[in-house]
Amino acid sequence: MQIDHLGIAVQSLTNAGGPWSRLGGDDAASVEEVPTQKVRVRFVRVGEAEVELLTPTDPTSPVAKFLAARGEGFHHVAFRVPSVDHELERLRAQGARTVDERSRPGARGRRVGFAHPSAFGGVLVEFVEGP
Amino acid sequence: MQIDHLGIAVQSLTNAGGPWSRLGGDDAASVEEVPTQKVRVRFVRVGEAEVELLTPTDPTSPVAKFLAARGEGFHHVAFRVPSVDHELERLRAQGARTVDERSRPGARGRRVGFAHPSAFGGVLVEFVEGP
Repeated sequence: MQIDHLGIAVQSLTNAGGPWSRLGGDDAASVEEVPTQKVRVRFVRVGEAEVELLTPTDPTSPVAKFLAARGEGFHHVAFRVPSVDHELERLRAQGARTVDERSRPGARGRRVGFAHPSAFGGVLVEFVEGP
Repeated sequence: MQIDHLGIAVQSLTNAGGPWSRLGGDDAASVEEVPTQKVRVRFVRVGEAEVELLTPTDPTSPVAKFLAARGEGFHHVAFRVPSVDHELERLRAQGARTVDERSRPGARGRRVGFAHPSAFGGVLVEFVEGP
């Protein structure tokens, strides 16, 4: 298991990648819409890590509520796992809450699923399926 | 450049590692005090990543103020770099603010330095010196 990316909530994707370019980030990545979360995202590579910039496409998006409550900043950390369904089931078997019952389509054509922040001391954890 | 660890603010180190053990984290790590930040920390390995749990040792600790304002949760992300001083200077040369003028002693006997959250869209970024 390794960190796949950090999710950062931003008011707008325009220029949002700039700061991460200071760390050598590749800010040329394309923008993608993720309808299941009502967000538009852009991935910026920072060395061996990736940062996912998220902005809401709709006031009912969870990210719109997050921005209203906390402002721009860290939103979630994503771990890469062989099976998202397996991780979600394993957490529930240990009594932890998950946002998603099962994995669903996420950005970059990969399956994703979220644990509930209460499962990780206030930190929103995403699982992304990948090698 | 790669992610060295995620810093998570907690009210107490007791049992705080539990949730991360659900991801296969090694929760047997020892506790260390970092006087320069008025915190006690514990590192928990999660796969190839690490989580640093931080709790204040004094009400004037920056982490005490963070907990009072935002509660438990994500506090900072740390990138491993060959030279912390070089990164801090590079950021300032680009007009970004840094919390630390120069690197200083951090946890695990390594030199560290913090950028200002304004430099990274609200995200507190730490640099940790290492190979």
